[in-house]
Amino acid sequence: MEPPFERRIAACKRRLAAEGADLAVCFPSPNLTYLTGFEESPSERHLLLFIPRDGDPAVIAPAMYEGQLSELPIPILQRRFWTDSDDPLETVAAVLEGYSLETRASPRADREPPTVLVDDRMWATFTQDLRELCPDATFGLAGTVLEPLRIRKDDVELETLRRAGAIADRVALEIRERGTNLIGTTEAELATEIDRLLAAEGGEEPAFETIVAAGPNGAQPHHHSGSREIQNGDPVVLDFGAFVAADLEGSAATAMGRYPGDQTRTIVVGDEPPAAYERVHETVREAQAAAVEAVEPGVTAGAIDRAARSVIEDAGYGDAFVHRTGHGVGLEVHEPPYIAADNDRELEPGMVFSVEPGIYLEGRFGVRIEDLVAVTEDGAERLNDTPRGWTTGQ
Amino acid sequence: MEPPFERRIAACKRRLAAEGADLAVCFPSPNLTYLTGFEESPSERHLLLFIPRDGDPAVIAPAMYEGQLSELPIPILQRRFWTDSDDPLETVAAVLEGYSLETRASPRADREPPTVLVDDRMWATFTQDLRELCPDATFGLAGTVLEPLRIRKDDVELETLRRAGAIADRVALEIRERGTNLIGTTEAELATEIDRLLAAEGGEEPAFETIVAAGPNGAQPHHHSGSREIQNGDPVVLDFGAFVAADLEGSAATAMGRYPGDQTRTIVVGDEPPAAYERVHETVREAQAAAVEAVEPGVTAGAIDRAARSVIEDAGYGDAFVHRTGHGVGLEVHEPPYIAADNDRELEPGMVFSVEPGIYLEGRFGVRIEDLVAVTEDGAERLNDTPRGWTTGQ
Repeated sequence: MEPPFERRIAACKRRLAAEGADLAVCFPSPNLTYLTGFEESPSERHLLLFIPRDGDPAVIAPAMYEGQLSELPIPILQRRFWTDSDDPLETVAAVLEGYSLETRASPRADREPPTVLVDDRMWATFTQDLRELCPDATFGLAGTVLEPLRIRKDDVELETLRRAGAIADRVALEIRERGTNLIGTTEAELATEIDRLLAAEGGEEPAFETIVAAGPNGAQPHHHSGSREIQNGDPVVLDFGAFVAADLEGSAATAMGRYPGDQTRTIVVGDEPPAAYERVHETVREAQAAAVEAVEPGVTAGAIDRAARSVIEDAGYGDAFVHRTGHGVGLEVHEPPYIAADNDRELEPGMVFSVEPGIYLEGRFGVRIEDLVAVTEDGAERLNDTPRGWTTGQ
Repeated sequence: MEPPFERRIAACKRRLAAEGADLAVCFPSPNLTYLTGFEESPSERHLLLFIPRDGDPAVIAPAMYEGQLSELPIPILQRRFWTDSDDPLETVAAVLEGYSLETRASPRADREPPTVLVDDRMWATFTQDLRELCPDATFGLAGTVLEPLRIRKDDVELETLRRAGAIADRVALEIRERGTNLIGTTEAELATEIDRLLAAEGGEEPAFETIVAAGPNGAQPHHHSGSREIQNGDPVVLDFGAFVAADLEGSAATAMGRYPGDQTRTIVVGDEPPAAYERVHETVREAQAAAVEAVEPGVTAGAIDRAARSVIEDAGYGDAFVHRTGHGVGLEVHEPPYIAADNDRELEPGMVFSVEPGIYLEGRFGVRIEDLVAVTEDGAERLNDTPRGWTTGQ
């Protein structure tokens, strides 16, 4: 399979033209990874990717990256490396000059000031630099052109998300089967064990802090797994997933970033759940099923949220469902589309997001059930498919 | 000892007044940690700290942070929490309104448009929001007011940096004493062992990727420790340090962030270094000593770089010293002051930075010697003080 980067860069350029923008500038971020496969943390050193509407993409980076960036499978890239004795802003200015954009250094009476879209995660120190170099430019966000591309996953991305889902599912089954053997284990110990199992199943690292929330701790949606020992009859919320590397042939030159798993199950350890537990669990399960059932192209994200929320409201627990129904996943664990009541965005094939309604009863327990789903041509594909009930294997 | 946050916030407000700015807005970053002790990773959710020139600081954050942020030892803070069903921009607008700043929602003919300084690391998506809320404001960087504060370390910061230095020193001695026992160990294995020792000595986690660069790999200043086995006669560059938590009484409510160790030694395993090695090592050692000797208040950062560089140039290796002489350390591993040839900034008591000249001979070996130093009232205090020679203990 061919690396997708030329196709993605070409699509970005078409979007720039459609938006009337001249240039997108990316910073180390998921946008950079999406367009080049290159992953790096943000730092104070200038490492920028320029995608012009007209002309060749360029990357500028500290000289120490020369080896890595020269291997990227993007034939048309200009590469400019600066050393500690250079002023990186001169390198930036040279790239802008190469695109014939109006800048402070080269005013052009014959051209409109450019429209420059900067990475949504670019640090203010770098956007200020660009604003000073192009004082008359109009600035916007690169997400304007990149989000519509990133939100629809291609085949390699979908396949990677399926692998991440399968890894999380195998670990979810393993934990469920332990049943009453979990009694006496602390939340933190079980979280560590889940992380170990995720790695053993082929995950790279946890995609977020693994949540094990036992008994009343389950009423906190973002509980940090702690010292509470799991007791007989405890409901336990288990929310986890691992990153999986997307690559075409397993070499660094074909790296495509990492995609997360993210699923939640709530089980009861032992066979005596707290009062009202069964009805709450069944309500969340129905809400989750109703929301997944509602997924198809053309339906709004808000409608998916309402499908889940109305089941919970009808059962009298509306106030106890304190968060949105879900979030998109991709190179980011939280990204568009957000499955929230006020989001009018229509679903499209290739979108992947979580469906994770919950009911949280302060001081008592919580229940959340979450799967990732991919929008298909006519409905939804679940990327997680382990039992959603509360009973365990022992 | 009192938490320093009220003092730091008051100093920030005085600087805002001196700069003619109305407001600083911080994002999860070292600036936020400096002003509040709170540490968090950046995310797509609005978590912002507002320091107005006139009025009370405010923090806005997702509701899930209510517990942590309510514990911060900053009595004067306004705290506003938003949930998934709120529009966080309305919360931002309400804070700005509370400061009587001119915004889009409340134009004020009686006032000049405000000057707003945003965190140097704030993501563009958040600065764009602020620009839309305050379309007539002048925007700058919060570093303008915070960098002059952060660059001079106070007593707690200096004490933490001393502890980080001592931890790195104990590990450096331990590795040096192993001498020829290191033969056959791979770079990656030794790096893992160094990380283990740093933790055992009380470090929190490595402050950066530990560098073990054996033989010709030492010629790459940022070599990634790999599969090369250390051989008899190999020079080995050892560059490492761990973060140490600054706290006043060891409780979360008095957390003050983490400060790094960062030292480098180059040793020779065995007693037959490569040709020219001894002269190169001695040159780097003299250059490092000359630079440390030159440190005192009022001298420029550039003069420190020149003190090291001239020794290396005089020995004929000027082209082989490919990086600046050092960088400041604090809540960031790399921060001002940068010890670079063109930096005219004058040193002040309380500044802490690395002095780390090196000579890199492609295909042969490299030598780098690095200590952290603190500027005192009349000179320099070294925060690292283990032997700088190449011989080992065995």
